Amino acid sequence: MSDKIMEDLSIDCVIFGFDGELKVLLVKHGEGISKGKWALPGGWITYDESLDEAANRVLFLLTGMDSVFLEQLRAFGAVNRFPDKRVITVAYYSLIKASDYELMPGFTASEVRWFSPSEIGELPYDHREILDYAFSQLRKKVRQEPIGFNLLPEKFTLLQLQTLYESALQIKLDKPNFRRKILGMNLLVDCGEKQDNVSHRAAKLYRFDEEVYNSLKEDKFVLDL
Amino acid sequence: MSDKIMEDLSIDCVIFGFDGELKVLLVKHGEGISKGKWALPGGWITYDESLDEAANRVLFLLTGMDSVFLEQLRAFGAVNRFPDKRVITVAYYSLIKASDYELMPGFTASEVRWFSPSEIGELPYDHREILDYAFSQLRKKVRQEPIGFNLLPEKFTLLQLQTLYESALQIKLDKPNFRRKILGMNLLVDCGEKQDNVSHRAAKLYRFDEEVYNSLKEDKFVLDL
Repeated sequence: MSDKIMEDLSIDCVIFGFDGELKVLLVKHGEGISKGKWALPGGWITYDESLDEAANRVLFLLTGMDSVFLEQLRAFGAVNRFPDKRVITVAYYSLIKASDYELMPGFTASEVRWFSPSEIGELPYDHREILDYAFSQLRKKVRQEPIGFNLLPEKFTLLQLQTLYESALQIKLDKPNFRRKILGMNLLVDCGEKQDNVSHRAAKLYRFDEEVYNSLKEDKFVLDL
Repeated sequence: MSDKIMEDLSIDCVIFGFDGELKVLLVKHGEGISKGKWALPGGWITYDESLDEAANRVLFLLTGMDSVFLEQLRAFGAVNRFPDKRVITVAYYSLIKASDYELMPGFTASEVRWFSPSEIGELPYDHREILDYAFSQLRKKVRQEPIGFNLLPEKFTLLQLQTLYESALQIKLDKPNFRRKILGMNLLVDCGEKQDNVSHRAAKLYRFDEEVYNSLKEDKFVLDL
């Protein structure tokens, strides 16, 4: 393995974490031209690793997050996106359950933590554009395939599921409408149980029908020809 | 403008052309390590142009095709995808009406022409993988938004539209089922006319309802929450 880096190519990762609300993972740069700034976890690609490998390595080194399933968004290559030299970045994203991972800053990151979208201020380079694009892809994904399997407890209420959808879509949904549509997909199985130890009226618990979930994940179509 | 190229970054374009059937545009390399081979139109990125600009310039230089709306697919960066050195390529694609463009080989291309998918043999580098990925994105697109506006005559028959869908999806569709679904979308307006000068039974002519077409293009959703 050569650790030699490609000088004009980088990786940036948008990690969405869910834990009752949607968060975005940022790292504080501990060195270099953006020292002290919070930014997307990113770094250089070496000559001997694929893009996917680079994305996983960079994320692990900066945040301690291992084995995250990262999907490529696209390359960003505006001429002046990076100061001083021409750098094209390949962006990746993931939606994970935040509590599944322990965060540990490393490499060029002095800190790492989850931010609410509204908390995120100015970001260096074109990281705002990358983040906005990742949000748009997340919204698309949520409309085209089921989500929740690794994000919610095994048994969950319709309100918990609605909160997940609202977080991912960044909009408020109409409750009766949401329930009607989601129940109409035959995706959920009534567990025949209710929440316990809650101060409000206990709600019904549901789980995903794994077979329906997986088949919906495969045929993500509007126009079912 | 500096014409200096980035040594480790290239562009590749998948151009789907429709003219009653779906074709793929390939160029024959007139020089270099792949001389004599048919491949996707591709080339290097210079320091002073964005990725989108590079894609348009490369396509124009090699094929004479100007002002093609190219969408980025993603970056391909397997370690050994290119011989001799590490090169990451950013792939673009487009679906156009083939007869709208005059082809003119240039730059490193000695020939340029349309191929039926079944005619395409071995392709150099990872161009087969890029082409397959482009096909998968085309299928996704076709299932999520209307197509046809710039690909069919202004007035067309349902059979012409079905042929377009079958070409893009690379499958045979059931005729009554296709008609029922497409007419159920309120996307088509009956022109109140029939084909003329045809030897078979004249079929009804339709046109797109532009307003419905554009609104469907915007809300490409399965789960209409």
